[in-house]
Amino acid sequence: MHVPKQDRSRATRQRLLAAAVACLAEHGWAGSTVAVVAERAGVSRGAAQHHFPTREDLFTAAVEYVAEERSTALRALFPEGAADRRAVVAALVDLFTGPLFRAALHLWVAASDEEQLRLRVTELEARVGRETHRIAVDLLAADESRPGVRETVQGFLDMSRGLGLANLLTDDAARRQRVVAQWGEILNGVLD
Amino acid sequence: MHVPKQDRSRATRQRLLAAAVACLAEHGWAGSTVAVVAERAGVSRGAAQHHFPTREDLFTAAVEYVAEERSTALRALFPEGAADRRAVVAALVDLFTGPLFRAALHLWVAASDEEQLRLRVTELEARVGRETHRIAVDLLAADESRPGVRETVQGFLDMSRGLGLANLLTDDAARRQRVVAQWGEILNGVLD
Repeated sequence: MHVPKQDRSRATRQRLLAAAVACLAEHGWAGSTVAVVAERAGVSRGAAQHHFPTREDLFTAAVEYVAEERSTALRALFPEGAADRRAVVAALVDLFTGPLFRAALHLWVAASDEEQLRLRVTELEARVGRETHRIAVDLLAADESRPGVRETVQGFLDMSRGLGLANLLTDDAARRQRVVAQWGEILNGVLD
Repeated sequence: MHVPKQDRSRATRQRLLAAAVACLAEHGWAGSTVAVVAERAGVSRGAAQHHFPTREDLFTAAVEYVAEERSTALRALFPEGAADRRAVVAALVDLFTGPLFRAALHLWVAASDEEQLRLRVTELEARVGRETHRIAVDLLAADESRPGVRETVQGFLDMSRGLGLANLLTDDAARRQRVVAQWGEILNGVLD
């Protein structure tokens, strides 16, 4: 079977990105190097370095790539927009409780101590944050021309990040479900 | 001037705890050792190890001590309970935007990768979380016997943690102020 070179290259790149997020989520920044990710992805170190010259390149690209994948998946879950706001609220909170959030959290905390990483991650966070906000506004059918609606959506996304944090060390699913049910009602009332 | 030995020992301990939180906030877990903290506190390494035999002892005790100090200060700010809920909301959010939150975040993230630290930090987080919840309920004059009120307060505290996270890499104060103003109103309405 013939696979065009360009497609092979794209597949290699995607394997590296997925392995990088998994590695960051499991081992943190200190345990995440290009070499470790290359081995996990079954890619030679040289090929990995061809795609991502630096460690910062690899891990920021990985978090961005997986965040985009998740955004696309989330939009696909609600092709007609907000059918039921409470379901949208639950799906948005889910964005912050998986390996992607764990990986991003490791990257953010490492960036707070490392100047070189800090600028890259700050830009990345701004881009991903804007896109998440846009999706939330669309799926929640939030009318941002009304006063306070923008801040309402922002605060809800801050809550989602806090819920992700609460899930870092222990399985917080049972408590989270009750909080999300209650705040889904509150948010629904405020946005109506 | 004669200072009793017990008081000197307590003062040394408190200097170590304050230095440990500052060190963790500035340098992260990887850069935080008993030796570094002892030097910062102007205490001999032997004395530091007398008070805190292990690195885990020192840093978990430090986060707990400073959290207690902050809780006491917060209660002192509102000696009569909730005068104005919006002021209480702002003060509670402030708990999560300073060096203590930054230090705790470094400790949590490190604990997610280190089994030995994980149990200690999980217990610590549960204790500090319960106390913060109790203060929030008291100061917000929230009646937890009403359905949904407990989850409302929990979700608000999750939002506060998320706002702390958003402040990690950049100064998020202007946006945060708008979010807190809006959610202070929402919370006030729900709790009435």
